Amino acid sequence: MPTVTTAVRPSKIPHPDTDAIELATVLRTVGDPLRLELVRLLADGVERSCTELQSRLGLPASTGSYHLRLLREAGVTRTRAAGTQRHISLRRDDLERRFPGLVDVLLRAG
Amino acid sequence: MPTVTTAVRPSKIPHPDTDAIELATVLRTVGDPLRLELVRLLADGVERSCTELQSRLGLPASTGSYHLRLLREAGVTRTRAAGTQRHISLRRDDLERRFPGLVDVLLRAG
Repeated sequence: MPTVTTAVRPSKIPHPDTDAIELATVLRTVGDPLRLELVRLLADGVERSCTELQSRLGLPASTGSYHLRLLREAGVTRTRAAGTQRHISLRRDDLERRFPGLVDVLLRAG
Repeated sequence: MPTVTTAVRPSKIPHPDTDAIELATVLRTVGDPLRLELVRLLADGVERSCTELQSRLGLPASTGSYHLRLLREAGVTRTRAAGTQRHISLRRDDLERRFPGLVDVLLRAG
């Protein structure tokens, strides 16, 4: 009887490796009031749905998706698919390892 | 004989007050590899001429002026006119007061 190997299905949502996260890209990406607000909403470490984040900021879905995509592509957030829903979390440990102190600066400043 | 008052000539080069420096604007502005490099060149606290900075980065004057203007307008650098020459310095104390730790993050990270 042939052995059936269960293939590990690669995530369809690409994220940069921690070592590939670029400072200039992160700064440029969080250097937008709305995206900075998204980072702050995620700062407590709780994973939140795309829908919840959009509703917290009063954004249309298309606008929210756009900003969340930029944050993910820059390496600032992680997006996890669960069915049709997407769940977002801050890559706080990865950012801290790569750029010590940066997240604190983003959260501290008025 | 009329008294001639020597008017204090206001600087023609506008700079935002420290309290008006916005985090998102600073992040967006330094979130460009070339402007980040300019910040690092100025990190030793030495004032440098526009010409020197442009030559250090191998930039045409127009490109250099553009990036230095963005840094000044964001509140990251101070530009002082001396004759036809312009001298640039990092507003390190102002940035530190407003966003503690930010400059260190910019200088530390690879």
